[in-house]
Parts: sequence; C-alpha cells; structure tokens
Amino acid sequence: MPDITAGTARFRFDRGARGPDRTAFYARPVELAALLDRIADDVAPEIGRGAVADYIPALARVEPWRFGMAVAEVDGAVHGVGDWERPFSVQSMSKVFTLALALSRGDSVWARVGREPSGDPFNSLVQLEHEDGIPRNPFINAGALVVTDELARHGDAADALLAFLRRESGRQEIAVDLEVAASEAGHADRNRALAYFMASYGNMRHPVPSVLDQYVRQCSIAMSCADVARSALFLARHGVRNDGSRLLGLSAAKRINAVMLTCGTYDAAGEFAYRVGLPGKSGVGGGIVAIVPGRCAVCVWSPGLDARGNSVAGVAALDRFTTLTGWSIF
Amino acid sequence: MPDITAGTARFRFDRGARGPDRTAFYARPVELAALLDRIADDVAPEIGRGAVADYIPALARVEPWRFGMAVAEVDGAVHGVGDWERPFSVQSMSKVFTLALALSRGDSVWARVGREPSGDPFNSLVQLEHEDGIPRNPFINAGALVVTDELARHGDAADALLAFLRRESGRQEIAVDLEVAASEAGHADRNRALAYFMASYGNMRHPVPSVLDQYVRQCSIAMSCADVARSALFLARHGVRNDGSRLLGLSAAKRINAVMLTCGTYDAAGEFAYRVGLPGKSGVGGGIVAIVPGRCAVCVWSPGLDARGNSVAGVAALDRFTTLTGWSIF
Amino acid sequence: MPDITAGTARFRFDRGARGPDRTAFYARPVELAALLDRIADDVAPEIGRGAVADYIPALARVEPWRFGMAVAEVDGAVHGVGDWERPFSVQSMSKVFTLALALSRGDSVWARVGREPSGDPFNSLVQLEHEDGIPRNPFINAGALVVTDELARHGDAADALLAFLRRESGRQEIAVDLEVAASEAGHADRNRALAYFMASYGNMRHPVPSVLDQYVRQCSIAMSCADVARSALFLARHGVRNDGSRLLGLSAAKRINAVMLTCGTYDAAGEFAYRVGLPGKSGVGGGIVAIVPGRCAVCVWSPGLDARGNSVAGVAALDRFTTLTGWSIF
Amino acid sequence: MPDITAGTARFRFDRGARGPDRTAFYARPVELAALLDRIADDVAPEIGRGAVADYIPALARVEPWRFGMAVAEVDGAVHGVGDWERPFSVQSMSKVFTLALALSRGDSVWARVGREPSGDPFNSLVQLEHEDGIPRNPFINAGALVVTDELARHGDAADALLAFLRRESGRQEIAVDLEVAASEAGHADRNRALAYFMASYGNMRHPVPSVLDQYVRQCSIAMSCADVARSALFLARHGVRNDGSRLLGLSAAKRINAVMLTCGTYDAAGEFAYRVGLPGKSGVGGGIVAIVPGRCAVCVWSPGLDARGNSVAGVAALDRFTTLTGWSIF
Repeated sequence: MPDITAGTARFRFDRGARGPDRTAFYARPVELAALLDRIADDVAPEIGRGAVADYIPALARVEPWRFGMAVAEVDGAVHGVGDWERPFSVQSMSKVFTLALALSRGDSVWARVGREPSGDPFNSLVQLEHEDGIPRNPFINAGALVVTDELARHGDAADALLAFLRRESGRQEIAVDLEVAASEAGHADRNRALAYFMASYGNMRHPVPSVLDQYVRQCSIAMSCADVARSALFLARHGVRNDGSRLLGLSAAKRINAVMLTCGTYDAAGEFAYRVGLPGKSGVGGGIVAIVPGRCAVCVWSPGLDARGNSVAGVAALDRFTTLTGWSIF
Repeated sequence: MPDITAGTARFRFDRGARGPDRTAFYARPVELAALLDRIADDVAPEIGRGAVADYIPALARVEPWRFGMAVAEVDGAVHGVGDWERPFSVQSMSKVFTLALALSRGDSVWARVGREPSGDPFNSLVQLEHEDGIPRNPFINAGALVVTDELARHGDAADALLAFLRRESGRQEIAVDLEVAASEAGHADRNRALAYFMASYGNMRHPVPSVLDQYVRQCSIAMSCADVARSALFLARHGVRNDGSRLLGLSAAKRINAVMLTCGTYDAAGEFAYRVGLPGKSGVGGGIVAIVPGRCAVCVWSPGLDARGNSVAGVAALDRFTTLTGWSIF
Repeated sequence: MPDITAGTARFRFDRGARGPDRTAFYARPVELAALLDRIADDVAPEIGRGAVADYIPALARVEPWRFGMAVAEVDGAVHGVGDWERPFSVQSMSKVFTLALALSRGDSVWARVGREPSGDPFNSLVQLEHEDGIPRNPFINAGALVVTDELARHGDAADALLAFLRRESGRQEIAVDLEVAASEAGHADRNRALAYFMASYGNMRHPVPSVLDQYVRQCSIAMSCADVARSALFLARHGVRNDGSRLLGLSAAKRINAVMLTCGTYDAAGEFAYRVGLPGKSGVGGGIVAIVPGRCAVCVWSPGLDARGNSVAGVAALDRFTTLTGWSIF
Repeated sequence: MPDITAGTARFRFDRGARGPDRTAFYARPVELAALLDRIADDVAPEIGRGAVADYIPALARVEPWRFGMAVAEVDGAVHGVGDWERPFSVQSMSKVFTLALALSRGDSVWARVGREPSGDPFNSLVQLEHEDGIPRNPFINAGALVVTDELARHGDAADALLAFLRRESGRQEIAVDLEVAASEAGHADRNRALAYFMASYGNMRHPVPSVLDQYVRQCSIAMSCADVARSALFLARHGVRNDGSRLLGLSAAKRINAVMLTCGTYDAAGEFAYRVGLPGKSGVGGGIVAIVPGRCAVCVWSPGLDARGNSVAGVAALDRFTTLTGWSIF
C-alpha cells in the first residue's frame, strides 16, 4: 500500500472573471486537506475491492490498490491525497469534456442524442434500436460517439479535447496513452457495431473508422486526479474557464451538470444521486469526477470497479465527502 | 380565462426548529409575489395546451385553462398566483408523501423497491418482469404500490397520509375526492395487474384489493397548490416539519430529493432535470411539486399534459421560475 | 421403478366418417406396441431427470419416476406402455382442446389473440405490453385466458371442456382434480396479473375472477395418456371426432396443428420442431401431446421437466418415436 | 400486365437414387400446370399490392406487377406460370442453401446459432444482446452471417453457393447481380453492425469485411423461380441432390425444413405456418421458396411486400396452392 497523505497546490484563477457566490459552511483550504486525509483513512477498507477492468490488457495491468483524490476549488486552490498526481486512463470521464466542447459550438448535438437515463447498461444496442438510432444520452457509448462525430465537424475531436485539457489543467504533458489506445482499437468491435448501427439510421456524419479512431484516442488520455479536477472546474463555475473566459453559458453549464446527475454513472445514476448527491461521471479506468456547483470539482481514482462499472472506493470516498461537508446538491 | 393575480399568505413556522441557512440572492417575499405574476404572464400561451387526462371521467371534466402556482418559503411565507388555492387531484404527487411517511418508519422499504430511473413509461410491467418483481423506484406505480403496502403495516395508508397533509397544510378540509376515487377504482385494472404481478414474486404483504383501495384513495386526495407546497416544505428543510419537529433525518430527506430528481417525472426525468434543474414530482391531475433545498417548496398546477404525462404549463412555469431566480440545484 | 410393459386397447371409431388415407410404411398395430416397449427402454435413463414442477404443492408431490406413453391411431386402436392409463394433471395441454372448442364456435378468437411464437417465456407480460394486450398466441397463458374468456360466452368453459374430453375418451370418470385446482387458485397471482392487464386493454369480456376460475379448473383436469391421445385424435383426422362427426373444418384443424408446431412447447418450439418434427403441446404436469396428421395422436408423460418446462423423458420419447417411425411431418 | 400462362419443363432426375414415396391424391403433371394457371388467376388481384423493397436503388427498380411461380417435382418435372423463368434477386432465400451447405460439412454451426423463432424483426440487435451474441436462428440476418462465416472456413462462401446452385439448377448462367451487390454493399451498415456486435462476443471467425462481402454477394444472386425450385428439391427429397447423390442425411434435411417452418418468414412464421402450412423461406426480392416434403419444391415471386417483408402475392399463391392440393404438412 502506498503512503497516502494529503497535500495542497494552488493554481491561478483569474478573479477578474465573475465567479459564483461561495458561502462555505464547512471547509477552509487547510480543512479540506485534513478532510481528504480523513476520507482516505475511512475508505481504506474499500481500496482494492471490486474488479479492475480487464477487457483490454493495457487497463488490466493497473495496480488495484491505487487510490487518489483531488479537490479543485473555484478560486484555484487544489488539494489532494494519495495518488492524486499520478496519471490514469480517463476513459468515459472524457465524455463530459467532449460534450462541453460540442455545446460550446452550439446546440445541434441535441438533435442527435437524448437526455434521458438509459435504464440499460452503458453500451446497449437495445435502446438504440427501440429509438431509431438516437442514443438516450451523451454519456452512454453510443451517445458519446455521436458527440465525437459532431465535434469532428470542426477538426479532430481528440486533438481538440487534448488542447482543452492541457490548457485548463496547465499541464502540457497530458497525452493519449498510445498503448491503451492501440489496445482499445483492437477491442472496439462493440463500439464499431454501435457506430455502424447509428450510421444505418443516418445518425453518423463522418466515416465510422475515423469517428472511432478519435473516440478511442479521447478515452485513452491519461490524466491525474488533480488534472481532471482542474479541467472540470468550469462546471463548478457555471461555464467559466480557468482563465476567466466563458466556455459555456450559465444554462448550458448547469444542464451538463443535470445530465451528469441523471446519466453519469451508467445504470447506477439513481443510486449515485441517492448516495452521493452530486453530478458525477465515472470511467472504467476507475476515475470519477464530481461537481459541487459554486464550490469545487472533485476527482477520485481507484481502479477496482463494482458490477456496474463504477469505482468501489471512488463512490465510497465521494459518499464520505458529501456526508462530511454537507455539500450535496439536495 | 380566470383573473390571475398573485397573493401572499403566511403561516406559522416554529423558528425554534433549526432551519437551514438561507442566502437568497434574488427574491424577498414581495419580489416572489411579483415574480409569480410575471411567470403567469410568461406562460399564458402554454396554459390550456396539451391533453387533460381522460382515462377516468372525473379527471376528464377538469377545466383545461386552469393555472395556479404557489411558493412556500422555509420560514413560512406562502405566495401564490392564479388558481393557487383551488383544490385539484394530486394523483402521483401523493407518492412523495407516502414515501416520506414510509421512510419515517425505517428503511425497510428499500429492500422492496429500487432507486433507479425506469427508462420505461410509468406503469410498465416490462421492467418488473426483468427484475423479478422489484420495481425500479418508488415513483412509478408499481413502486408506489409497494410503498403503500409497506405503510399499511402501521394502519390504513391513505388515512395516515391525510392526517399528515392536514397537519402540514393546516387545512382540515383536505379530503379524498370520493367521485375521483370511485372512478379510479373502476379503472384500476392495470394497477391491479401490477400488484398481482408483484404478489406473484412475493413482493406484496397485504391482500391486493386492500392495498389497491388505499392506493386509489391516496391518489384521489384533492389539494390546492398552497396546500401541496406547505406540505412539502419538510423536503426543503431537510426533514423538519412545519411544527419544528423532525419527520426524517437529514440524509433521508436529501435522498428523497435525489429520487425525485432522477425519477419524479416519469420517463422525462432527464429532460426535467435539464430544463428545470430541481427535484420534482408530477401527477396526471396536472400538478407538479418541486423543491429548492434550503429555500422553498413550489407547487404548480395546470391540467393540460404533454405526451409523457407532465403538465405543459407547469413545466414551463418551473422552467421560468428557475431561470428567473437562478435557483436550480446545478 | 414400475414395470413398464406395453399393451394395446381398442375403442370404437365410426368408420362411416371419412378418415384420411393411411399409407403406413412402418408400423402395424402389433409393431406399435413393440415400438413403445423399445422407446420405453431407450429413454429409461432420462426418466426421473429434470425437476418436477413445484410451484404448487399438489403438483410437487407427483412421483418423478413415472413414465407412460400412448398412441391412438385414427382407426381407433390405442397402444400404450408404462403408466399410460394413470391419470396426471394435464395443465397446459388443455389449451389445445379449449382452442379447438372455441374455434368450433367460429373465428372470433383470432381477433383477440395472435398466432406467432412468443420468443419469451410462457407467462411473459413483456410481450403483452409491447403489443397492447393482444397475446402472441393461444398457447401462452395470456392467450389461453383469452380463449377461455371467449369460450365462456357459451357457458362455463371448464364444464364444456370436461364434456368434450369425456365423450372423446369414452371415460366419464375424467374430472377436475379439486386439490390441484385449489392449489392452483391459491398460486394464480401471475395469471391474475395477466388477466387484469388484458382487461386494462379491453381484451377481457367476463370478470377476471370468473375467467380465472374456469381456467384453473381446465388446467387441473386429470387424464391418462390414453385419454389424452384419444381425445386429440380429431387433430390427426383433420377435424373429425371419434363419433365420426366433424368438430372443425379441414383448414381449422390443420391450423391448430400449425399453431402447435410453432408455439406448442413454450420457448422451445423451434427446438421441438427440429428434434421431434411433430405438432405438440406440453404441460408442466409432464405431459406432451403430439399429432401425426393422418395417422395418430400420441401422448407421453413423465414429470421431470427441463429448464423450459417440457418433460425431459417425454421429449426424448417423442424424438425416438419419430426417428424410429420416420413419421415427422418434414 | 404480362401474359401469364403456365408451362411445363422436365429435367433429369437420376432415378437410381432412392426417392421418397409419392402418393399424390391430387395432381398429376398435367394437372399441376393447370393448377398453376388457376392460382395465377386467383391471385391476380394481389399482384402489385404491397411495397417493393426500396432500401437499395437496384431493388427498387423492379417492376411491381411481376409474378411467377414454379413447381419442381421430386421426379424432375418442373411446371411454371407467368415470369417463372425470369431471374430476380434471391436475397434471403439464399440463407436456406448456405445453411444446407454448412450442415453438409458438419454440425458445428449449431454451436454458434440457435433454432428458435426470433419474435423480433429479422435484423434485430435486441435479441443478440439478450443472448450474448448467439443469433436466434440461421434465417435472421445475424444468423446467416454466422453461417457464412462458418462456410468461409472452406473457401469463399458465395462461390461455393454459386457452384451448388448452378449444378442443381443446371443453369451455368446463374450469377451475382453485380449492380445489386454494389448497392447492397453501400447500404450494409446494419449488417455490419450485427457482424461487429457478434465479433465483440467472439462469434465471428473471419474479419467482418470479408464475411460481409461474401454475404452480400450471396444475397445478390439472381435466379428464376424455376432455378430456385430445382435447387431446393434436395429438401423435398430429404437430402438427395438432383444427381442422386446425398447432400445431407435424412435428419439434417428434415431439420432444415423444421427451421424453415418456424423461422423462415421473419416474424410472420406463425402466420405463414397457419395459412400456408409448408416450410418456406422468403426474401425481400419478393421470392418465397416452399417445400412439400416427399413431393415437390415450389418457388413463387412477386415483388410487392407486406409489412413483414414477405411477398403479398407470393403468400397468397402458396395459400391457394396448399388449399387446392391439400398438400400442407399438417
């Protein structure tokens, strides 16, 4: 087991930008660092539980006892514990960012993808067939493929995503893990099936191989908890990026949070809302990003997954986090 | 069209009880009244749109151009506009209150009903069959029947609900509309099927006819927007009733809000979260109750329903409400 | 294990009635008796395998090692082996006879029930919901309830069925097993759900409790293999009863055979057609009735069921029967 | 409208091969020709009804008023009426022949595809997902792709099929319609999705593009009713080819007939069995091939399709055929 101790970093947030009110009733920076220490202690028994995603060799090799958690506050402070600066595969967490980038270009994606929970596992074709090739929401694989296809109208979607993530996190080193990408590409038959199926309904603008390539590279980006939390801060700031410019309007940003809450954790969205009470998006790499609107973005990582594909220790840590801070949205 | 003008009432809230912080950045009482006037104006074109529920004669007779809206603040002020004091059939809004009453007795109901969005229309048997008689959540009909069956362990569920609603609203006149109840009972074959189906899986404790009778009477209670908003205030106060006593613990109350958000508006929960951004529960009588945690409970009523069974003007009014106040939870 | 030896009986067939041509290339009567002996030997290892239906106590008590088989030829000869004269619960085999009785009154039942295989287990509500309360075929429970409801227009359906079976088999002792019927009635919640669900779509003419009572009594009739085979001979004779009168026209009789082939063995109809190659209908009592058009009706009984609800030894015996005689319809 | 008159041809059948007994009670050759004339008259009002398949331009161009029918008797006589010698696109009728060729190599295909009716439309992914990538039967598209993949172990499946069809029909001119094949290949996204989906479950041995190419060419073969009827005679002769050699054992041949009966006409198999009473397989080119075991193979063609994808006039003609001859298998 690694030595898990919390630390705090700070990065620039342009206060000239209008940020939302903050009326913290629990945590000051120093307290958040202590809080993360306590959470890491509390969830220690959960770390290593569950199963590491093993559908591709590159993911299966990750050490199951890893655990990291980072909180980025809207004013720029970042706190972390454990492996919070160690990169891991973001996988489906990337879907939040590509959706935001697509919406920053306009609303057209909503004509091609819904906003309802799927009720079925995350890569189901059943729903697609019942609803004529329109995916239920942008966070199931089919929906994310549509979002990538939409983004691709403006150039390579994975490149656009990388540029965004590097800028928000301030880390130019963020990159696609080429081994993971190659491994994913070699195990993409189901996503390929989803894409061709949507193509058969006319819901794919670009050639499937090209969309799939961009999609696979997005999912294969490696980032740390700190990187993810920083990059997601625009959702806590209702659309305002770290440089103070606006990526999305207030409504669009809130709406991404709403979609995260209802659809962000596969078919466990209700349970996650019930237990954690925050908008969140998980990935099979073991990461979960969650938003406390007006306050902070949180990212937690631990590779062991539950039966629905969400990090066991990650959900537990977020549960502790909202219990201890009282920061659920409900 | 009726003359729609806003008014404000006030009812007692025992300030000895610990209420949540309120840091309203928009509305003072006088402003809320003006706000409701504006909303009524804004949604006027929507009033009368959609189809009045017609599966029973007693509901089909309601005048489609009715519109009322009430906001009850956590400190006891109640504001309203239009038909905000006119009773209507609460129908599925009752499910929120029976769930709260059941949870006030303990957690056992969660062993018999899930917390996930259904993905299917509100009275679907498909899901029940796929999941062995365990309804997806307490707000679809099957789940609400289980909640009623659970409540029935402590006496007649409809009587318990009436007692609660009378006390919270301060209106002893609240009653079951016997004509609606008789009409519902005569058109309850699908709910009867749901109940017997769950019984076949061992998920019904009491005889189906008895549970169904209690369920039908709950749904047939007539209340005004003001009554509903007052009665739902405990959800805005995280469990604290109007007399300052605690109905539910903080977590349980927040969790009801979470279930409302993910499951409260049939298979349009994602759309409602996206557009309104508040926990809400609708009924085919045309009512919707929504919660702004820490601030207020809102009830809006207009009988015309959209294709998914939610009030057209009601959703529009709540959309305006959160847009104008900025009070979405996201 | 019982002593299983074959015997041959003979009962009257009015040769004045026009029977179909018979060009047997295998069996003469004496040979059929020998054939049944051989089949009983061949399938001995299968007898007792599988699980006895245990959803009601009265069925669960049957001895799993029972095996009987009877062949009734169109000219009136009946041959049998093992427990071929021992009554057992006909259960769903009754559906063939009620369908025939309903069709003898006219075609109106086809407006209320389809003729396609269900693709789902035999008492599924999923399909009913997808197809607006019209059951897929008359041999799933929902469809058989509709047939009973249709028959009930002319009086009690179970009484009509009993009268028919007594006359065809020549055995006045045939009766409802009251213990089984009481037990079924106490475990009928799922069928009750099916019936109320269809009622909610307007596809039930009589009150559900009455239809259910008649349905339960039909299923609870006890008959021997010999009784069933004799009673089913009209299907081998394309509509002609044992007294030479015509129950059904040529087309109607053939069509019942077609429905048996495609829908008669729950969701194993394709496998049964593939392996046995005859129209057949099974029951969870362990019986299967099969038809060789123009030649004979066969009934086999052994209580152990496979995962799809068909008698393990029964299917094996029919498989041997068609292999040895070459009498598949294909 | 074309001049529809019947004719009779004769082609060699090696009588040295053991053919099944024939005890025709209706038709002699001369009568069959007259019968076809009568059927063509009787179904004239149906010709041109329904919709021509229009998912690819090459199919959409076919003249809707075409009608042809051919009967090939087990002794080699072939009778026809109308456009019975005019080639059309065989489409899914090819699935019968590829299944037979795969089974002539052994039983291994049955480990990869089921034998049950699908209950869903012919290219459904729903079922595939519910059953882990194992198609329900070899006559839905997914199942036929598996059969092609299986055949491909021994060389190009379309080439093998062409060789077989040329030899059985005696017509070396039979070929792939390259325009149809190109058009199909350009509209194959759904089949591509099916194939990749099965690949994701490990149920595809060869690369999807290669299997799809062979599959598309099979479907694009053009043959006349006479060609198809002659080529299908081995199914009427329980496995014996036109040169007297055996393609399949008795059981395997009968079993193909059984699968045709339960699964051969998309989700109308029950209706087809009920109405026609013969094993049959339809294609969206408007052809249907049907088998009277021991007697003859029939092929009918008319391009107008019903809602389930079966030729309107074709089904009507087969219905008349079995009604007039009494040759249903039931």
